[in-house]
Order: sequence, then structure tokens, then C-alpha cells
Amino acid sequence: MSRRKFLVGSAAATSAALLASPAVRAQPAAVTWRLQSSYPKSLEILYGACTMFSERIAELTDGRFDVKVYAAGELVPPFQVLEGVRNGTVEAGQTASYYWVGQNKAHAFDTTLPFGLSARQQNAWVFYGGGLKLLRDFYAEQNMVNFPGLNTAAQMGGWFRKQINSLEDLKGLRMRIPGMGGEVLSKLGVVPQTLAAGDVYTALEKGTIDATEWVGPYDDEKLGFYRVAKNYYAPGFWEGSANVSFFANKEKLDALPKAFRSAFEVAAQEVNVMATARYDVANAEALRRLVSKGATVRTFPRDVLQEAFKVSEALLDEEAAKNATFKKLLDSWRPFRETQSLWSRVNELQFANFMAQAGVRR
Amino acid sequence: MSRRKFLVGSAAATSAALLASPAVRAQPAAVTWRLQSSYPKSLEILYGACTMFSERIAELTDGRFDVKVYAAGELVPPFQVLEGVRNGTVEAGQTASYYWVGQNKAHAFDTTLPFGLSARQQNAWVFYGGGLKLLRDFYAEQNMVNFPGLNTAAQMGGWFRKQINSLEDLKGLRMRIPGMGGEVLSKLGVVPQTLAAGDVYTALEKGTIDATEWVGPYDDEKLGFYRVAKNYYAPGFWEGSANVSFFANKEKLDALPKAFRSAFEVAAQEVNVMATARYDVANAEALRRLVSKGATVRTFPRDVLQEAFKVSEALLDEEAAKNATFKKLLDSWRPFRETQSLWSRVNELQFANFMAQAGVRR
Repeated sequence: MSRRKFLVGSAAATSAALLASPAVRAQPAAVTWRLQSSYPKSLEILYGACTMFSERIAELTDGRFDVKVYAAGELVPPFQVLEGVRNGTVEAGQTASYYWVGQNKAHAFDTTLPFGLSARQQNAWVFYGGGLKLLRDFYAEQNMVNFPGLNTAAQMGGWFRKQINSLEDLKGLRMRIPGMGGEVLSKLGVVPQTLAAGDVYTALEKGTIDATEWVGPYDDEKLGFYRVAKNYYAPGFWEGSANVSFFANKEKLDALPKAFRSAFEVAAQEVNVMATARYDVANAEALRRLVSKGATVRTFPRDVLQEAFKVSEALLDEEAAKNATFKKLLDSWRPFRETQSLWSRVNELQFANFMAQAGVRR
Repeated sequence: MSRRKFLVGSAAATSAALLASPAVRAQPAAVTWRLQSSYPKSLEILYGACTMFSERIAELTDGRFDVKVYAAGELVPPFQVLEGVRNGTVEAGQTASYYWVGQNKAHAFDTTLPFGLSARQQNAWVFYGGGLKLLRDFYAEQNMVNFPGLNTAAQMGGWFRKQINSLEDLKGLRMRIPGMGGEVLSKLGVVPQTLAAGDVYTALEKGTIDATEWVGPYDDEKLGFYRVAKNYYAPGFWEGSANVSFFANKEKLDALPKAFRSAFEVAAQEVNVMATARYDVANAEALRRLVSKGATVRTFPRDVLQEAFKVSEALLDEEAAKNATFKKLLDSWRPFRETQSLWSRVNELQFANFMAQAGVRR
């Protein structure tokens, strides 16, 4: 190993050493960025992903690339994060792009679609299945670069005041569920509601709504839904996983020194591993607590899943017929989902299903 | 954004700039490390993980931390990699620690155990379930630090000349299977064989062995086993996932500048995401090709899985009774596996099992 210690004394000593050793280069000038999250500090895995990201970048760059993290709404409102990044109000953001499906449903591919890919399959599609190129092209048109950066994995179907025993029970059900999941459920008779986070509990308690979905046990527990709606349904088929990305303003990213760009990218990759791991641990523990507090875990009836799948696929086809960007993404994503579903069925699920029983039996 | 361009002209200009700007610090001196992999270049996802790792570190450090990658056997034999790292012959290695279970079965926890954790659960246990602390303590005693760095995900059960229809069919079966998987199968009557990689195909062709396990479709395809043993069994229950780690010599790691240590760690995290994604894509495609070339995918009968699970759990208990390190790890790992199995059964698998059918049906 050829390794020399380099001790910096004073500016003069540094300068002398530099002249003596052409191998010593000056570090790039310091840069400060602002990273606006869509999430409050209380959603500590989502928000915590930003602080982990920022701390790693600081460590990698000896503190010279300083990414300051701002919680929901501090500089830009939660659902304006992409606009803020696009126009350079902030250099970077952390959000789930599917909040923007109202502008273009193509955004959903960066997060998830109903009956979409698992967390692992999403990474596989993005990094080795052609997804990243298509997504980057889409975001480049908006002066942004996306960095997949966290996956919640499969979300729960949410909290229901009454049991759902068949498709019939969905008719007229008032449920807080945004986005494409809401569109799918509306075709099954559900009346989707949009409510601010702070209003959901009271609406559920009073019966203004009959059900709400949120994320998974860990995040759901904090909002206390188990107190007012005991039936906790699985799976959240409209969010079989959900990727949350870091977004950078493209011009500003391109202007960074190469090592700083590299730090930004690799720190997102690390969060990708870490946040899913953290969710898995936190969700598994929270689920036990929720059950001990009276929540009853239930599975959606098969006819609900089947009919929802049918209307969901039709929705994707409809959108592809009128949206060229969506079609381009769907044409890559859907065959990929099929190939991965087959492989998963042949091996991983054989093992996982056995362990889901055997691993608990002791 | 406060961002200044810093252009280095000549040594004199640099020196002047340094004197003028106390914010500009000199970069740490260059370091060269040697990374010895246990894998040949032909296992391109495993070996490729090392080049990806090395390239990212170079990029993050402006080329000043140069981790030179050596393929299997170039500096140290494949199954001597840990010894090489321990004694400083090489600064770093990439290997699956379970090759060392002959020295201490505790090594298995860094890779996998029979009926162990899935790839995602392994990350969850390591990073947020207490696993990393226990593993780092174990490796610190050996002057090493482990960095989880790649997971093959669930491996296949391997290639069998004849069908396995019941436990009875395993009696006397000569199978190439090393490690704890071999120990488990030997208790079911299998006669485990150890063969060098280059000898497996011929032994299988001639009938000197009846079966062999390897990795998964992508790596298996290259060795051509489908030509001489058509029955391709799932799942590889002794490798429900398999983590391959980067190992660093502890003293040498501790002596690195903080930013270089950080680069080493985060680059391993990135490979952790990327290599599994690459395996998923490559395996799914290879499986289709193997089937078109005549391989028949089969699932081990339930009684084989059940009996194997029983003897496997007994093996872990036996080892814990005589090995304090193993016991400490098992006491953390086994309850973790139970909690995760429950959570997985409640939600993720409900979704995955539905998609394994629905996602293919179109």
C-alpha cells in the first residue's frame, strides 16, 4: 500500500507542500444546496432519509457540499416541490412524483402504479430494465434529474370502519384515497375523498368517511386510525411499492464538480437500501403493537382484487392511447412486470411462502 | 446558492489562491488499495460488483483513493481471501463469508443460513435489527470490517438428473453442495460432494454425481448444466438469499481519511442495490432461455421442505449449544426472522402472490 499522511499545518506550510508535491490538488470550492422535502419531520423515515442523504454527502466531500434539508413547507409547499426544483427556487427536492399525476400520469412510473412492481422489481426495472433512461428523459424535459431514493415497499390497504366481504361492500364507500388508486376504486363504486392529513382522523371518527389508506403500520400508528376503524386491510394493491425520489435541478446539477454529482447520486442509492430496511423493521414491530391495541388484520376478498386489477389495466391502456410519454413507459414497464412475475413465481415466492409459515411456527 | 468556480491553473496559481482563500483545503494524499475478489471475471455480476465499487470510489475521491480490483486467485486464492485481508496481504476483499463456516459457523450470518432471511430481510436485520453490530464485533476480533455489498436473492435448488418426488428420492443422492446446505441435506440421506467449479459439468454428465446446485438461472446457464440434467428445482432453501460482502483490513481502514472511509462504505451500499437489481433482470431473462432449451422447472415436494426445515433448525440449535458467538447471533436473528415472516405474510406476500398470477395473465 502506498499511503502517505498529509498533515496540514498553516496556510504557508500548505502552500509549500503544494509546490513541492504536484500530486496534491486543491479541493473544489464549497457549494450549498437547499433540499426541500414533501414530508414533515414527524414522518421520520421519509424525512430522515433526507438527513441521512445530506450527512453522507457532507462526509464524502469533507463538508464542502452542504445540502441543507428543509421539512415540508419550509421553503416550498409539499405539493409544489417539483415546481420549486424545476424553476430553481430550491436546488433539490424529495418527493413522490405520483403527486403530480394530475399534470401527467407518466409521473406515476417513478413512484408506482396500481398493481405495479414490488420494491425490488422497481429497482430492477429502473436500473437494468431501461426505466431510468425513460424517466430521466421525461424529467430532463422539465429541467430535472430524478434519483430513486427510498421505497416504502408494499403499503397496507388502510383502515375501514366496516368489513369488506365482497365487491358489493365497496359501493358508495367514502374513502380517503388520492391519485390513480382513487381512480381505480371509483370504478368499483368507491367515492374517493381528498383530505388534508390533519383532517383524516376526525373525518374517520365522525363517519364523514368510511375508510382511509395511508402508508403502513409504522406511519399509520402515529395517526391513531386503529382507535376509530378497527379493520386493517391488506394489501394496498394500488401501492405494491412506492419509490420516493430525490430530484435535482438539472442545470445546477450539471454545473457541480464531478465528485459532488457522484456524491449526490451514491447517497441516494444508500438511502434506497437503508430506508426500506428501516421501514421493514419499524412496520413489523408496529404491526404487532397495532394488533395488541385491537386492530384486526384482514385481506381484501379475491373478487375485489380481480375486478380492481381489470379496471386498473384498462385505465393504463386508456391513458396510453392518449399520452405518448405514458405509452412509451408502459411499453417498457408492462412486459418487464410479466417477466419478473414469472421469475418471482418460480423461485423467490416458493421460498417466501414457505418461510412465512415455517419461520413463525416455532 | 453560494457556489464559486475554482479553476486550477499552475502550481503557483494554486498556491496563490490557497493563500488568498482559507476556505480552500488541500485534498488528502492519494491511497492505493488492492481488492481481491473470490470470483472470476466470468461471473460478471459478482466480479462486476467490484469494478462498480472501485469506479464509484475513484469518482467520489477524484481518483485519489484507487482501489485496484483483482479477479479470483490473482493475489490470494479464492478461499483465502479473508486470511489475506486479515493479515494485510491485501487491504480489501470481496467474498461470501460462509465459505469459512469450517472455521466458525458464525460466518454464515453475514451470508445466509439454511431457511434464512430474504435479501430484503437480511438488509433489515443487518442495518436496523442489530445484526451489523454483532457481525462487526465478530470481524473486529479478526482485524476486519465487513460491508454488506450484494445479494443474489433466493438461489435455485439446482439441477437434478432425476425427479425428486418425495423424501425417499433423496436417499443416496450424490449432490454437489457445500457448506451448511450440504450438512442439512446429508441428514436427509444425500451424499454431499465437494467439486471444483470446473469439474462439476463432467461429473454430472457422466453420472458421477446425480445433482448439483449453483446460483440461479443467469450464472447456471453459462455452465450448461441444462444439457445434462433437465430437472431444475426450486427453491434453494439453503440459500433463500446470499449476501456477498466487501471486507477491509481494520487497521488499514481506520488509518484512512474519513472521506475515503465514507466512500468505501457508501460504494458498498450502492452495489447492494445495483447487483440485486442486475441479478433480477438477468435471472428472469435466463430462466426463459433455459426453459426454451429444455430445462423443466420443478418445485421440491412439501415433505422435503418440511423435513429439511426441521433438521436445519436442529442444526442451528446444536451449534448454538457449543458456540457462544453463533448463539449470540442466532438469538438476534431467529426472533427477527419470526417478526419479519409475520409482517411479510400479512401484506407483501398477499400482493406478491396475486401479482405472480395476474401480472403474467395478459
